[in-house]
Amino acid sequence: MTDVTTTLHVDLGERSYPIYIGAGLLAQQSLLRQHIQGQQVLVVTNATIAPLYLSQVMDSLHGLQAESLVLPDGEAYKTLDTVNLIFDQLLASRHNRTTTLIALGGGVIGDMTGFAAASYQRGVNFIQIPTTLLSQVDSSVGGKTGVNHSLGKNMIGAFYQPQCVLIDTDSLTTLPQRELSAGLAEVIKYGLLGDADFFTWQEQNIDQLLVLQQEQLAYAIYRSCQMKADIVAADEREKGCRALLNLGHTFGHAIETQQGYGNWLHGEAVAAGMVMAADLSWRLGWLDKSSVGRIVDLLRQAKLPVEAPEDMTEDDFMTHMAVDKKITDGRLRLVLMQHLGDALVTSDIAAPLLQQTLQAHRVN
Amino acid sequence: MTDVTTTLHVDLGERSYPIYIGAGLLAQQSLLRQHIQGQQVLVVTNATIAPLYLSQVMDSLHGLQAESLVLPDGEAYKTLDTVNLIFDQLLASRHNRTTTLIALGGGVIGDMTGFAAASYQRGVNFIQIPTTLLSQVDSSVGGKTGVNHSLGKNMIGAFYQPQCVLIDTDSLTTLPQRELSAGLAEVIKYGLLGDADFFTWQEQNIDQLLVLQQEQLAYAIYRSCQMKADIVAADEREKGCRALLNLGHTFGHAIETQQGYGNWLHGEAVAAGMVMAADLSWRLGWLDKSSVGRIVDLLRQAKLPVEAPEDMTEDDFMTHMAVDKKITDGRLRLVLMQHLGDALVTSDIAAPLLQQTLQAHRVN
Repeated sequence: MTDVTTTLHVDLGERSYPIYIGAGLLAQQSLLRQHIQGQQVLVVTNATIAPLYLSQVMDSLHGLQAESLVLPDGEAYKTLDTVNLIFDQLLASRHNRTTTLIALGGGVIGDMTGFAAASYQRGVNFIQIPTTLLSQVDSSVGGKTGVNHSLGKNMIGAFYQPQCVLIDTDSLTTLPQRELSAGLAEVIKYGLLGDADFFTWQEQNIDQLLVLQQEQLAYAIYRSCQMKADIVAADEREKGCRALLNLGHTFGHAIETQQGYGNWLHGEAVAAGMVMAADLSWRLGWLDKSSVGRIVDLLRQAKLPVEAPEDMTEDDFMTHMAVDKKITDGRLRLVLMQHLGDALVTSDIAAPLLQQTLQAHRVN
Repeated sequence: MTDVTTTLHVDLGERSYPIYIGAGLLAQQSLLRQHIQGQQVLVVTNATIAPLYLSQVMDSLHGLQAESLVLPDGEAYKTLDTVNLIFDQLLASRHNRTTTLIALGGGVIGDMTGFAAASYQRGVNFIQIPTTLLSQVDSSVGGKTGVNHSLGKNMIGAFYQPQCVLIDTDSLTTLPQRELSAGLAEVIKYGLLGDADFFTWQEQNIDQLLVLQQEQLAYAIYRSCQMKADIVAADEREKGCRALLNLGHTFGHAIETQQGYGNWLHGEAVAAGMVMAADLSWRLGWLDKSSVGRIVDLLRQAKLPVEAPEDMTEDDFMTHMAVDKKITDGRLRLVLMQHLGDALVTSDIAAPLLQQTLQAHRVN
């Protein structure tokens, strides 16, 4: 354990905010307090996280009108109906426009709480305390909030930035192995899309990351957030380069939709999706075979799936990918790799090659 | 009838947009078409407006993937559940991020369609065709979108600007007299809060407005939108002077909440609320008695209520006003008048004077 706090500034003009990364941050009460402007706070968390960290967070809020709301855990509850429970409590307790919503949990809690903060009285303050590796490296940067719809993932939401993000790396000690791996899928994604050196560093440090070595964890989180912050600062509203962050996600969302949310973790679906993107990139003559092999190897070492579900057909993929947000005016756009560490968005994909990737489902 | 189109530009930087005002605008197909960027359109309207104007709007959209959704009419349907019907149709028909939502109807349709546009895939294009006087002078400027919650009005929503607003004054010929009057309440509000000359013009032209004289209508709408646009441009996110637009609204929202949405029209509640604000302003020694009389007289001539509902008690008002958004950190803030045409926001109100106004309920 270290008490060194790293601070990353996400630069979005008047919507800029800091991300604090370090061990033991939840015990530093002043860190949270300095970002709360009014007298009212609602901490939103779930039934898994509440017993572990809620009392520590509530201790930081003494003297305020601080309440908590414990939601059921899981992607299946990432719905408008659940967000409405947040509105119910805010209104029943008469929270006004100066209230602050704190999201304590993983991506689902962060996405719903952020959307509730964006929409309650047309926007109130919002702080994120992500407790999973996935949410620490993904949803803590970028301002994407929202919920799922039965016909598509993340179809309803808002771009909304928090006042700050607090990443206490100690919270990963209670994270199940499978969710740690799912988070590593996103860390690996950052190397693949834009930093070959970071990918190589991951190959060298994957064992330390899997056993939660603090120094390596903090660096992996910092570099991931930094890469995402740079991309988001250049393209806050996802009109251009931000789409690179969707590497593996178009295939991955199809897997999640087909399997039902929650059966495959998001990071697991993205891992298989990245292998499919690598496979298609190779078929297009871009990525060399040895790089595809390194990608598969690192994902395997991180204990992630490298194949789509066996029962998913080509038609299943095409059906689910057709409703994906990455389609503009009817054309399928995918994020692929020219080289390891160099991704691009393209809609210029020969249909037979895509079919081969979908039929192959796997890279041997 | 005139074919002169007046264009007002709402200046909000990259979110600026034009408001077109004139008779016969719905017949000018190119006006609407030039603001549609993609190939997909969903026109959202209600069961009252659809038979009157939907086919004319759909005619303007030939060649596009244009669909319509007809919702039930009324404030009672301004809920998250109804907005979800819009999401259902957008997803069932595979609308992507380039789609455009068109709101054809009054404020309820505009508010819900705008919130759906703000939230669908985290934001798609949006065009407003307001068909009631109230929505033409109120919700067509300012970007406020949202829905009601059982515990409060407009508690869930977003600030979201349209691509353009089309105000066809001919659409007022099908508006019931009671709704025309409700719209006039907001027109009168603009005079009271910031332009005594406009108020005097209204006193001189109220009879022509009530019989839909096009020239007077177009001017009343133009001047109202212009005043609101100036205020919104100075304060898009309602941190300061924009609160002036809430003149009469804190009392009015309490009336609407108490009576159940839809029993009193919004404009009717605002009219009674403005009389209460005038009464309190007089009790504070600001507004003179003769101005209070002129306000009551003009509202009466516009066939609007000038008293709160007889069965509403002081406690009813205090209960509903306590949850109102105009409260910051527990203090009740009200918009009152120093003079006719000169409003201000104040939280410096002696409780006994407020009680007297609530007990009086009326100005004799």
